[in-house]
Amino acid sequence: MDLHQLTRELHTKNDTKIVMYVADGLGGLPQQPGGLTELETARTPNLDALAKAGVLGGSIPVCPGISPGSGPGHLGLFGYDPLQYIIGRGALEATGIGFELQDGDVAIRANFCTVDAAGKITDRRAGRIPTDESAPLAVRLRNVKIPGIEVFVEPVKEHRFVVVLRGQGLHGHVHDTDPQATGVPPLDPVAADSASQKTADIAKDFVRQARQLLADQSKANCLTLRGFAGKPKLPSYEEVYGLRAAAIAVYPMYKGLARLVGMDIVGKAQTLAEQMTVLEQNWSTYDFFFIHYKYTDSTGEDGNFAEKVKRTEDFDAAVPRITALKPDVLIVTGDHSTPSMLASHSWHPVPTLLWAKFCRTDACEKFAESEALRGGLGQFEAKYLMTLALANARRLGKYGA
Amino acid sequence: MDLHQLTRELHTKNDTKIVMYVADGLGGLPQQPGGLTELETARTPNLDALAKAGVLGGSIPVCPGISPGSGPGHLGLFGYDPLQYIIGRGALEATGIGFELQDGDVAIRANFCTVDAAGKITDRRAGRIPTDESAPLAVRLRNVKIPGIEVFVEPVKEHRFVVVLRGQGLHGHVHDTDPQATGVPPLDPVAADSASQKTADIAKDFVRQARQLLADQSKANCLTLRGFAGKPKLPSYEEVYGLRAAAIAVYPMYKGLARLVGMDIVGKAQTLAEQMTVLEQNWSTYDFFFIHYKYTDSTGEDGNFAEKVKRTEDFDAAVPRITALKPDVLIVTGDHSTPSMLASHSWHPVPTLLWAKFCRTDACEKFAESEALRGGLGQFEAKYLMTLALANARRLGKYGA
Repeated sequence: MDLHQLTRELHTKNDTKIVMYVADGLGGLPQQPGGLTELETARTPNLDALAKAGVLGGSIPVCPGISPGSGPGHLGLFGYDPLQYIIGRGALEATGIGFELQDGDVAIRANFCTVDAAGKITDRRAGRIPTDESAPLAVRLRNVKIPGIEVFVEPVKEHRFVVVLRGQGLHGHVHDTDPQATGVPPLDPVAADSASQKTADIAKDFVRQARQLLADQSKANCLTLRGFAGKPKLPSYEEVYGLRAAAIAVYPMYKGLARLVGMDIVGKAQTLAEQMTVLEQNWSTYDFFFIHYKYTDSTGEDGNFAEKVKRTEDFDAAVPRITALKPDVLIVTGDHSTPSMLASHSWHPVPTLLWAKFCRTDACEKFAESEALRGGLGQFEAKYLMTLALANARRLGKYGA
Repeated sequence: MDLHQLTRELHTKNDTKIVMYVADGLGGLPQQPGGLTELETARTPNLDALAKAGVLGGSIPVCPGISPGSGPGHLGLFGYDPLQYIIGRGALEATGIGFELQDGDVAIRANFCTVDAAGKITDRRAGRIPTDESAPLAVRLRNVKIPGIEVFVEPVKEHRFVVVLRGQGLHGHVHDTDPQATGVPPLDPVAADSASQKTADIAKDFVRQARQLLADQSKANCLTLRGFAGKPKLPSYEEVYGLRAAAIAVYPMYKGLARLVGMDIVGKAQTLAEQMTVLEQNWSTYDFFFIHYKYTDSTGEDGNFAEKVKRTEDFDAAVPRITALKPDVLIVTGDHSTPSMLASHSWHPVPTLLWAKFCRTDACEKFAESEALRGGLGQFEAKYLMTLALANARRLGKYGA
């Protein structure tokens, strides 16, 4: 019996509201041994008040020592075991630019590259071609025609773009064509199983036509294909939790991840204040709200401690607009840590706060990594946050008699 | 390698004694935010002394957020993964009234109901018929005769009773006959697999004869059957742990659960003092003792904070009779929390105490939920209590060379 079999069997409906307020990359590290983390440095009176009334813990995104990307990080928060549910690279890239994958689609990450007259790769990233040059070339590739197949080509950034194939009988088990080396030609697309042979043939045809369309280019005169992947099969929030769920996010990646688990993407907010307005406007329509805040991660990735502190304070300042709505369960967490000292995602447990009427509070006085260590949630795998949320919302029946 | 494969391979025998002293529903919640739980309010000098000398932690019965019934709760304490070992509803109901299931039996929960002249259900619980009226009717159904099959019918409470079928070739995959609605007739028993066809046929015959026997009744003139289940296949304590185990319980449910894992049910104690006498009398005969105390759960279920406090103090007062026997390992825990504030089983971790000579103590000063948060056992799944018990009793060899 896995976690979703359990929630599927036990969930009940009531009129409670659950808010999951996510600061991407929330967890941090001190600048000096013995110092304070970004979160501990930030002035966060609203989160501290919630920490005092609620219960803290350390969320482990995947398992100890594993630094997750955005995909596994959010799947964990959403209660989908990130070691069981895998989002293929192509599907994640398509999701990240807001492309709405359909069942049966195959999504592919593509790179422009440079080949010499003999067809051998001289630059795997087409001289790091700038986006304003590469994007029109990606659009040009929409002229590839393959009978019976819809071909979507979407620019991403610099040498990167996305190809999505839509049609009957497509499967994603096709090997990468990037040889990961220069001085050799790109590989042909090779199917890893017989069901994917048609996809490999189509990919080969796509490359052939694309090279003709790029023949006039000096830098981006060829391409490689990577991470062939179908749309991941994720059961929906409605099915596994009985929740009508809304996602309030600014960036396409997080909207896309939420869409994959069946959340509605609501509003067109561009700022945290606008996100809170969207929350207020949709309060009566949904049971569960996922609110995504990006800048604790991006400032961490930039290695900018002071700016991450400031962005954490902004994140805190919006809390009263959530609590004013009187949610039954409020969870504040991150999908992973992004310490500015590392300028990257990390494996450290994420400080996590759960406030609810029956949460059994602990002695924690503020929202901080150091306090979370003595929190009542202990250290726990992120995938259990949703069972804790449902339990605290009194939306789970008893398991067994 | 699962937990029992591990203990099966590693367990060794010696003359140590392990006591697991279980206060059902032990964990609680404060009455007011910032207040004390039932256990923290209770005066528990004996448990506090053990907590100081031993090691504390929070036991998670199933997984975070899941509130277990008595079945999964106790399986966890006994070291049987409650998501792997499922006790069917009928088997649990039979166990709960002290019926000793045999391999091959099929146990069924049955409800008396009322049908009209057209055979449609008008009351699914036969007007909540009182037990003194329903019990003789259940006994009357023992007159059902099915060739080659032993039929047991046992009264439970009000409209509920248990039917056990014993004979060759019976299997429990039969759908419920309760349509969960009035205005429609009961469903026929339908086999969910071909191996259970014979059982479905017998159940149909049982219902036909039973209705004849109930024809003179106005309220309980019909019946529905639910939760068909065979005896769960649980390996025994002797086999997986090498322990001769005794259960000292007052209520049939807990005796039944202990019997399912191969414990001997010893004594006929009706009070905690009598349970301690039974413990003393059997001390030399067994390696492991499960002592079950009910009233921390029943008072919690009643929502009676003060009474749960008092019953916790009674539980504490019996501790010296256990420690006087000088057990090598003493574990004090519950199968789940039953906060009187919720008047139900809950998902909160259960304060747990392990005392043994080599337990590596922690800084905890008393037995309390808040202290357990900084305990040396951390938060752990209940199923690991038995490996911890065996280890502390020096009954587990090294894993791997």
